[in-house]
Amino acid sequence: MLTEELIAALTAAYDVVLVDLGDTLVAEAAAGTPTAHLVAEPLPGALDALRALHGRVRLGAVTNTSVMREAEIRSILARADLDELLEVVVTSTDVGVAKPDPLPVKMALDRMAADPHRALYVGDRATDRDAAVAAGVAFAATDRGLTDALTRAALRRRAALGAALSSVRRPSGDAMELARARHDTLTKPAGSLGRLEDLGVLLAGIAARCPPPIPVAPAVAVFAADHGVVRSGVTPWPQAVTGQMVANFVAGGAAINAIARQVGATVRVVDVGVVTDDLPPGVARRRVRSGTSDLAVGPAMSSADACASLEAGASVAAELVTAGHDLLVTGDMGIGNTTPSAAVIATLLGLPPADVTGRGTGIDDAMLVHKTEVVERGVERAGKWLDPVSVLAEVGGLEIGAIAGFVLGGVAARVPVVVDGVIALAGLLIADALAPEVRASVIAGHRSTEPGASAALTHLALHPLLDLELRLGEGTGACLAVPIVQAAARVLSEMATFEEAAVGDEP
Amino acid sequence: MLTEELIAALTAAYDVVLVDLGDTLVAEAAAGTPTAHLVAEPLPGALDALRALHGRVRLGAVTNTSVMREAEIRSILARADLDELLEVVVTSTDVGVAKPDPLPVKMALDRMAADPHRALYVGDRATDRDAAVAAGVAFAATDRGLTDALTRAALRRRAALGAALSSVRRPSGDAMELARARHDTLTKPAGSLGRLEDLGVLLAGIAARCPPPIPVAPAVAVFAADHGVVRSGVTPWPQAVTGQMVANFVAGGAAINAIARQVGATVRVVDVGVVTDDLPPGVARRRVRSGTSDLAVGPAMSSADACASLEAGASVAAELVTAGHDLLVTGDMGIGNTTPSAAVIATLLGLPPADVTGRGTGIDDAMLVHKTEVVERGVERAGKWLDPVSVLAEVGGLEIGAIAGFVLGGVAARVPVVVDGVIALAGLLIADALAPEVRASVIAGHRSTEPGASAALTHLALHPLLDLELRLGEGTGACLAVPIVQAAARVLSEMATFEEAAVGDEP
Repeated sequence: MLTEELIAALTAAYDVVLVDLGDTLVAEAAAGTPTAHLVAEPLPGALDALRALHGRVRLGAVTNTSVMREAEIRSILARADLDELLEVVVTSTDVGVAKPDPLPVKMALDRMAADPHRALYVGDRATDRDAAVAAGVAFAATDRGLTDALTRAALRRRAALGAALSSVRRPSGDAMELARARHDTLTKPAGSLGRLEDLGVLLAGIAARCPPPIPVAPAVAVFAADHGVVRSGVTPWPQAVTGQMVANFVAGGAAINAIARQVGATVRVVDVGVVTDDLPPGVARRRVRSGTSDLAVGPAMSSADACASLEAGASVAAELVTAGHDLLVTGDMGIGNTTPSAAVIATLLGLPPADVTGRGTGIDDAMLVHKTEVVERGVERAGKWLDPVSVLAEVGGLEIGAIAGFVLGGVAARVPVVVDGVIALAGLLIADALAPEVRASVIAGHRSTEPGASAALTHLALHPLLDLELRLGEGTGACLAVPIVQAAARVLSEMATFEEAAVGDEP
Repeated sequence: MLTEELIAALTAAYDVVLVDLGDTLVAEAAAGTPTAHLVAEPLPGALDALRALHGRVRLGAVTNTSVMREAEIRSILARADLDELLEVVVTSTDVGVAKPDPLPVKMALDRMAADPHRALYVGDRATDRDAAVAAGVAFAATDRGLTDALTRAALRRRAALGAALSSVRRPSGDAMELARARHDTLTKPAGSLGRLEDLGVLLAGIAARCPPPIPVAPAVAVFAADHGVVRSGVTPWPQAVTGQMVANFVAGGAAINAIARQVGATVRVVDVGVVTDDLPPGVARRRVRSGTSDLAVGPAMSSADACASLEAGASVAAELVTAGHDLLVTGDMGIGNTTPSAAVIATLLGLPPADVTGRGTGIDDAMLVHKTEVVERGVERAGKWLDPVSVLAEVGGLEIGAIAGFVLGGVAARVPVVVDGVIALAGLLIADALAPEVRASVIAGHRSTEPGASAALTHLALHPLLDLELRLGEGTGACLAVPIVQAAARVLSEMATFEEAAVGDEP
């Protein structure tokens, strides 16, 4: 059901909603069905969804068909009372080209005299998505039906997440060029600081300033959540440990606390989905739900919950930046969370689950075989989804979503974001799929030993600063990399040039 | 010439000096020379050296010979007035076994009723050295003659270097065992902090305490020196840059200054051999000589200078520890210094110079070919030496020697020493050859891109904490690793145990 709140969110963001027909609004006819036999069989909930929107936004349809024109389509739709809801119907036969060519979508917008930036296209195929992107129009995939697509479209434009997604930019090429040039004037052989120079250049790009600011107030956000998949036996640790470790974080006794103290980082502990209610004060309460459902047997959560986890992460990033933190580090806690991470990574990268499923914090061979089977079951369902948020909902976790939102929030705020291990990388893959510029603005802190981490890093073309064989999570690996990030900025700010230091002149 | 000062140093350390005969005291006869034809031809300076010691320490000879007994040897030695200087003469024929069996050496000591700890054996072969080590006796190699061997033997027992060499110990196995056990009680899956756990265990071993102290006052010593080999065209940088960079260090404008500020480390700049006299206040003056000679054409320096560079480094380490510094980082500056480093590494590891000679701070193919030839010339001379100090003198550099002494001083003081790149590793190889326990107590900070660095790391079985493709030196790579070392100690001190945090209990 589209609630009034969701409709309000949609109408705030969009003037026009265009829909694909086959398998988006109505059941796709079998190929070769004679036109005369075609019936419009609305998909479950689709008619309700369209009626709920009618009168609130302008509606249209854009469909690929090898034979029919608008009038024929409308006569079929009229039999299901759909025709009257649609202001325009554009077919590929009318236009002469089919999606993924953007022309049919553009034609619909032209006929409605609509602003592409205020338009949403909803469809079920990659060609629909590609046509929308090429037409400069927002896209929502009907992975789980039209209502679900509209729900995701509405929720991702709201609040901190919406602000983040609309603010994400690539690093500034101008600032990076200035940083490269500055490096060549500093008192050292050109390039001799290796990857520290590349990192300094990236920091300049992220801040859009050269020299980039030296981060002085890093913060680690440890997002904690529980996982229904624990019931399927993917870890030897009891679920209660998640809440116990949250208490340990607040008390300052965990590894992330010791490491954060060493590097001068604040630890923000955020409950986005822990099962227990027995949490100490000091935990930021952003719980979306009390743990996910078991992804071995069904969706981990709803799309609305997945969006809420993204929103929680994005808002924590915004709050930390507003409070003066200038370097963000991703952290996570959640017994069982390498299972959803492997499922997200396998799904988004199209890799066999066995290639990305690892031993997590240490399981035996038999449990690894079982865990891989569980991941396979999830990937089988999520593998066909187009929207990374659908994947997050189907097989992900609440802290994975929160990290995705946190990354988006940090990148949008133009502060460096250091990502940790496999959980963080699952989140980053979702963030990067939502805003493809993101990978260019994040720093991989540490190479986790989990196989999924390396697969994600390769896909994202990220090269971690550290490789210390950590497999703990919490943000520990990324936090250890913080002084290197700071040093990279400091070198660009504080080193003397050859001219200033009179180095290389005749003595 | 053995000065009175050197003789005093020798007699302070030793009651007994035993010498090998062939190629140590006298020219070795060609194999098969009939006994009747043998003459004692003292090697240049050898008779003077022995006469200078006579009456100040007790003297004896231990020689391998397939046919002669003491009386025959003595009759030959008498013709050169050598017989009267030697209290005992022990031949392998007398004993029935030959060096490297320690028995002939032990027999000589028994006959003199001497304490092995107060005895020195001087010889020219590895079998001599091995016999001495097995007999528990100090050894000096006659790489450059008897006088030179006695000089090195005297100087390495003096002052800070002598104190360091006698204090170097392996990490405490008990403390390491306690640290391993403690790690398994901390609130994290066993082993999940990877190499950070191993590092914490090592720190406990170094300090002989569990948990090990958290280093709070790191110091980087940047040893600066010039190199005569620059005249042979192994670098495009003018020699004056060494002194200019020393001024830059003192002014705080170099890369090491920026990085040290980031990690809270003090930078101590030490002149052990810069050519220019125009250095600013703030440089510690420990100059041994104004640059080395050109190793392409002859020895870089004398053995006494090499010992003085070791002493300078050891004394700086002792001073820094006395001043409260609890973590030492090696740094270097010296235009041309990758050439002597490659020569030291090739010599000590027995590797082809082409395998360990690199582009330093960036040279072209033609210069690399020439640089490799220069290294080959040095290695050809030094390749036969037994004593690492002889190698240092022949093809090394003053900052390389100082770093070797600094490492020994730090390990002796039981503080963690983080070594930097290829220059530091050349120094570490010398330190490790002087005191074979040393490699077990040092931390490799960063893998330099120089090929000699990787060769040395492999030989020493050290795995650097960082691999950021730095090739600057100054201590930059090692300094970047300091927070990781501190974090490894902090984790052991500050993390809660499962019991303390009530993690893993039933909720």
